[in-house]
Amino acid sequence: MIDCGEGAQLQMRKMRLKFSRLNHIFISHLHGDHCFGLPGLLSTLGLLGRKGSVTIHATKEIENFLQPTIEVFCKELPFEILFNHINPNKHSLIMEDRSVRVYTIPLKHRIPTCGFLFEEKPKEAHIIKDMIDFYNVPVKAIKDIKAGNDFVTDEGEVIPNSRLTIPAAPPKRYAFCSDTTFNPQMFPIIEGVDLLYHEATFSESESARAKETFHSTAAQAAETAKTAKVKRLVLGHYSARYTSLSDIKKEAEAIFPEVIMGDDGMSFSL
Amino acid sequence: MIDCGEGAQLQMRKMRLKFSRLNHIFISHLHGDHCFGLPGLLSTLGLLGRKGSVTIHATKEIENFLQPTIEVFCKELPFEILFNHINPNKHSLIMEDRSVRVYTIPLKHRIPTCGFLFEEKPKEAHIIKDMIDFYNVPVKAIKDIKAGNDFVTDEGEVIPNSRLTIPAAPPKRYAFCSDTTFNPQMFPIIEGVDLLYHEATFSESESARAKETFHSTAAQAAETAKTAKVKRLVLGHYSARYTSLSDIKKEAEAIFPEVIMGDDGMSFSL
Repeated sequence: MIDCGEGAQLQMRKMRLKFSRLNHIFISHLHGDHCFGLPGLLSTLGLLGRKGSVTIHATKEIENFLQPTIEVFCKELPFEILFNHINPNKHSLIMEDRSVRVYTIPLKHRIPTCGFLFEEKPKEAHIIKDMIDFYNVPVKAIKDIKAGNDFVTDEGEVIPNSRLTIPAAPPKRYAFCSDTTFNPQMFPIIEGVDLLYHEATFSESESARAKETFHSTAAQAAETAKTAKVKRLVLGHYSARYTSLSDIKKEAEAIFPEVIMGDDGMSFSL
Repeated sequence: MIDCGEGAQLQMRKMRLKFSRLNHIFISHLHGDHCFGLPGLLSTLGLLGRKGSVTIHATKEIENFLQPTIEVFCKELPFEILFNHINPNKHSLIMEDRSVRVYTIPLKHRIPTCGFLFEEKPKEAHIIKDMIDFYNVPVKAIKDIKAGNDFVTDEGEVIPNSRLTIPAAPPKRYAFCSDTTFNPQMFPIIEGVDLLYHEATFSESESARAKETFHSTAAQAAETAKTAKVKRLVLGHYSARYTSLSDIKKEAEAIFPEVIMGDDGMSFSL
């Protein structure tokens, strides 16, 4: 989970997401709309009898708010809450498991804030079953071939790896950037990602207000997507002043065509 | 506002209730589903530029949770948060203004808990304009008549107050009781109220579980309404295990017919 605003647990329930599969929560910054859902979510995990641990990746100040809350309301949680103190000002690896690496993306907001880059680990190549049979490849050689090596037959013939395998899909990358002012320093970090979520709090007509509050306009989000050559851009975090989002959409599309107007409950396949 | 669960501010917005009219928040007890909406609500009041003060009536332990949250997230609130520390174990007057008095109703739950009784103040009688004209009552005598006194004409004739006024509607009373086990000690406090909200977490088939968790069954809520001779009963706080509430409703109606199955967004006229 990335950020946890008030009502996040209700939204999870509505979308039928499994609470038991939630192991890591990444908090971009300590504004209420990004973390006031944590007390309720953690309590609910407790009521559901959650075991093991949940790791919260956030600046260390989060404990000043969460620890007293946990002490008052969750005296006997059946699981452990682990805190991974992150430095939002430095691009660094903060989590890694079997299939994914997560990095911080330093952002520029009114308080220390970072985005998160999710990078799939490279996968092994797919074996072409027919070719394996054709060359009588023994089972013990499969691992080597998957790792990219050629195969040598008993007769000494070298079969190039490219004839035996189909390359795995290139690792997918997703970048989440909210909240931030226009910030070219993040371009190299998010370059070429398959999906970029970027805030678009305002339209260009409110660019002064955007600068003042350390938020972005739709045009700036699109400019970021274009310059960083991302594949698709999802916008969100729109100011409540906009009753219609059509101008925000048009403004972004004029600069970067692959724009999706993010909304509650959407899901994306990479 | 009575209790403030997660998402209370979203619900207020949905129901188009004015944030600016919220001056008092009554918290029955410190379980998350009754107060995790406070940080978000108070932040929003701050963002809306709320002035003056908001009073939170709750046990003093609420500050252990709210103060650190306010310190982290609401460094410069433009309004004051006042705490009225209440004793949930004692029936007493905790708030009074021009039109209403609020009393605690001691309840029996797993932690210190109380309900709240809202009692309208008696209103002045309504003047019958035609009779005032008929007896040539001078303006200066009106106040006395409204207060219940008879009127004496210049000729010394005594006009009984009942000929000059229509009595004001009797003061309305609303009692909110959640969460609690069946508790006859509250009957005298809530006797005859116009509306009683009472929790009905379980049906009678789960009465053992109700006792164990200090909650009530629908039958117990109805029994309370019947014995205390309340006018109408609103049920709520149903366990998530019930996909249909028809059994809960039937169980209560068999004992007390004036049952309303409480649900999100309902409003009641007294």
